[in-house]
Amino acid sequence: MQILLKRLTWVFAITLGCLFGRFTSAAQETTEQWGVFELSLSGPSTGNPFVDVNFSVNFTQGNSTRKVEGFYDGEGQYRVRFMPDKVGEWHYTTTSNNPILNDKTGTFEVVKPSAGNHGPVRVAHTYHFAYADGTPYNPIGTTSYSWINAPDEREDVTLKTLAASPFNKIRMEIFPDNTSSGATTLQLSPYLQTADKKWDYSRFNPAFFQHYEKRLGQLRDLNIEADLILFHPYGNNVGLKMGAANDDLYLRYVIARFGAYRNVWWSLANEWDLIRAKTESDFVHYGELVSTTDPFHHLLSIHNSAVIFNNTLPWITHASIQNGSAVEASDRAELYRDVYRKPVVYDEVKYEGNATQRWGQLSPQEMVHRFWEGTVAGTYVGHGEIYSGEGGPWLASGGLLHGQSPARLAFLRKILDDGPAQGLDPIDKWQDTPAAGVPGQYYLYYFGLNAPESWTFQLYKNGLRDGLHFQVEIIDTWNMTITPVAGDFVTKKKDNYNFVDEQGRAVTLPNLPYIALRIRRVDNAPTVPLSAPNGE
Amino acid sequence: MQILLKRLTWVFAITLGCLFGRFTSAAQETTEQWGVFELSLSGPSTGNPFVDVNFSVNFTQGNSTRKVEGFYDGEGQYRVRFMPDKVGEWHYTTTSNNPILNDKTGTFEVVKPSAGNHGPVRVAHTYHFAYADGTPYNPIGTTSYSWINAPDEREDVTLKTLAASPFNKIRMEIFPDNTSSGATTLQLSPYLQTADKKWDYSRFNPAFFQHYEKRLGQLRDLNIEADLILFHPYGNNVGLKMGAANDDLYLRYVIARFGAYRNVWWSLANEWDLIRAKTESDFVHYGELVSTTDPFHHLLSIHNSAVIFNNTLPWITHASIQNGSAVEASDRAELYRDVYRKPVVYDEVKYEGNATQRWGQLSPQEMVHRFWEGTVAGTYVGHGEIYSGEGGPWLASGGLLHGQSPARLAFLRKILDDGPAQGLDPIDKWQDTPAAGVPGQYYLYYFGLNAPESWTFQLYKNGLRDGLHFQVEIIDTWNMTITPVAGDFVTKKKDNYNFVDEQGRAVTLPNLPYIALRIRRVDNAPTVPLSAPNGE
Repeated sequence: MQILLKRLTWVFAITLGCLFGRFTSAAQETTEQWGVFELSLSGPSTGNPFVDVNFSVNFTQGNSTRKVEGFYDGEGQYRVRFMPDKVGEWHYTTTSNNPILNDKTGTFEVVKPSAGNHGPVRVAHTYHFAYADGTPYNPIGTTSYSWINAPDEREDVTLKTLAASPFNKIRMEIFPDNTSSGATTLQLSPYLQTADKKWDYSRFNPAFFQHYEKRLGQLRDLNIEADLILFHPYGNNVGLKMGAANDDLYLRYVIARFGAYRNVWWSLANEWDLIRAKTESDFVHYGELVSTTDPFHHLLSIHNSAVIFNNTLPWITHASIQNGSAVEASDRAELYRDVYRKPVVYDEVKYEGNATQRWGQLSPQEMVHRFWEGTVAGTYVGHGEIYSGEGGPWLASGGLLHGQSPARLAFLRKILDDGPAQGLDPIDKWQDTPAAGVPGQYYLYYFGLNAPESWTFQLYKNGLRDGLHFQVEIIDTWNMTITPVAGDFVTKKKDNYNFVDEQGRAVTLPNLPYIALRIRRVDNAPTVPLSAPNGE
Repeated sequence: MQILLKRLTWVFAITLGCLFGRFTSAAQETTEQWGVFELSLSGPSTGNPFVDVNFSVNFTQGNSTRKVEGFYDGEGQYRVRFMPDKVGEWHYTTTSNNPILNDKTGTFEVVKPSAGNHGPVRVAHTYHFAYADGTPYNPIGTTSYSWINAPDEREDVTLKTLAASPFNKIRMEIFPDNTSSGATTLQLSPYLQTADKKWDYSRFNPAFFQHYEKRLGQLRDLNIEADLILFHPYGNNVGLKMGAANDDLYLRYVIARFGAYRNVWWSLANEWDLIRAKTESDFVHYGELVSTTDPFHHLLSIHNSAVIFNNTLPWITHASIQNGSAVEASDRAELYRDVYRKPVVYDEVKYEGNATQRWGQLSPQEMVHRFWEGTVAGTYVGHGEIYSGEGGPWLASGGLLHGQSPARLAFLRKILDDGPAQGLDPIDKWQDTPAAGVPGQYYLYYFGLNAPESWTFQLYKNGLRDGLHFQVEIIDTWNMTITPVAGDFVTKKKDNYNFVDEQGRAVTLPNLPYIALRIRRVDNAPTVPLSAPNGE
């Protein structure tokens, strides 16, 4: 709503300026840091404004300048959206091949972010994420491919569901998917049609994007990151057949429209290798284009089916991986970390549900289990659900969640958010130890499908010396209980590799699957220097 | 010996030519395909011939030309070595900045390779290897870092040990390692010394290289690939501190001397990330240099400690990985295949032995187990042994093998060599199935540490239809027995994913660990087209 008011103000101010034959500098606006400053100008509506008119704006504060592309929003309206990353006064100057839109200047004030606005999410500590203001961000993502192609009332239901869920990220397609993955029908098309009823890939449908943006903004207000899937193989969608030039036009348009939303992530594709009409080098081109065009440097990844993309490429910020079997055990899940030296997000690990295909038959226990295995591997896992229901499954078209895993994922998220700000890393890469944490400070063990009756207190040497005090809690990840173990455990060197409790104490465990331990340092003794990555 | 004779002939012929003031074209020689043709010329011995004299030779057959760098071998002798990859007549022309060595021409005949000479090993079928003549090559490698720095009689023992072993590849350092990894002392140095007894990194010691080449040739004659470690971090070796220009000089010299040996592989480094004086970009430079300088395009890799190199780089032919825990289970081991789309060779998976460090404490059973897990992951595993013994352990200085794993690795090698020529690939990447093979034709299952009492015949659908006949053999990988199961198993579709036996038959298993199954198609029915890599 705030954006809408601002837009109207500007339209009025600038339209007025044009009536008097010159540009009137409008009154100074205020925008919050990482909010959206939108400038709207009236211009030509004849010809094809989507391709005929170039329109960009330089935003400047001190020595810092961001060039941002504008876009045509129909009905003679040209807009540019800017996400300021610094408070204070910013200046802008427009550039256009159309004199009406060229060389307009102005000034606006950027104020501190409001509560809950931590800025866009960035990579932090190599394998993890944090908001731009430094607040840690632990992704607990879900997937609902085409929820923004549902009837409006269902989309509202989806947002209510998300608001009550643990999910702070959602993977979602831009191109509507009206056949393969759900029961939705095409509500709005991203393109206008030609006189003979064919899609005109050089003319976007502003109504589609305005609707999408409304939902994007609502996700932002729920503190949910929108992992936007730019291309996907499903349902013979229009994005499969636009041709190379229109692919680029589309990407630039989407970046111009959506890029200023701080909760946007770019996912070049879902299952890129199933998009048979596009080659690997096409996606390298798209990735380089998005990376160099997006002035706000949102997170950028690409998701695979059978063929994992080369996630070492420098424009890929994190590995977005489909591999359900990798997160069946932490010692598998962590392998991709070493390969990519980037955050690893398992964005598809099969689905909780009752589908006939085996990718949609995970029990809720197994879904939660995979999150925990991924967690103690120092990686992140995404949720999906495919219970049949009216209007299609959550995976396809949102609506209600029917599964039992989300409540347990909320429990996990609380544990992560209470954990070390720097994230959890595997404790001992050379040995099969299902633990992640911060050496010497914090350990999260997970026993998975095993149901041990006890665990002898033992920690890998890094960051330890004799006499450090730890407290242990037993976590039942399925029943969502946290049970403190009485008394401190005090470290004593056992051998070249491990420390044990000086009394040799063990922890009695409930002989159930899905049990974890949280082990936290409780003394104030000086920390022990950590060893560099090394051989043994 | 053949090489030595040839060398003497040429020295004579060309020396004679020079005495008469012009070059005498020598009588035509014959060399076998993928053998070593060596041309030797007398030239200047003053100054520093290693850097002052440029000497290269173009070898031509038809439209095919290979430029090969020569090298100075001391005592006024300049040589060039060429590994011809085609039979027939070849011509050569020398180029040098010294007139004595410039513009010499000649002709020689290349004949068919002798028995046992299959050429250099190349990547085949994306994830596997084959000799240049197409013969499959299944690496069963071992490691003995500095065996060529032992007393001569011990080196002879090492060769005898290798001849009786299953190993067809050995990882070995070029720079002698006389401190960290064994009990050897420095026998020969690769460099000459300056007047004040410091190493002169611009002057190589021909005696060192001549000795090394003798051993290289002996390995070749045993059909053992020499995976030559160009840099390593151990024992404060001279290769750590030569400076960038001399690093390049060294690499060019080694390539010129050793590159014509068909059994050479280049390993840029052992544990590259422990070589603190060199950066990652240094190794990228070395890799690009070796890749572009080696006229014979030998296999080229780089081995890690804690930090895996970016094995997606195009000059890396296969991933050479240290990760013992990855091969504890096939579902881990196979993950790197998808990432690199190249052969994966686990060149260090800890060692069979009785060391005090945990990397040298594998039981022989565990070593063999890791080979099998790697095998059914569609990857390859390397052996190492560190039992204490006179003259140092095998790992460091060769000698005798004391372990129990080599006999079992010979058993495995026989199975691989009897297997499909195209190599073994995981059968069902989406599910945790410990099987590799060729869909519809050949399956190798491995149950690892589990000791099942029976296995219901069931194969993943790819390449199958109803009514195909298979025979099953039970392999005890530790006790080295192969027991056929009576009768054919005949496929019948069970569900969307699997086929079972039409009678529902199961295989009774011996309730022991380390059991495998070999399942081979025995009918002559037409094959079933395989599905492309795909989602489900």
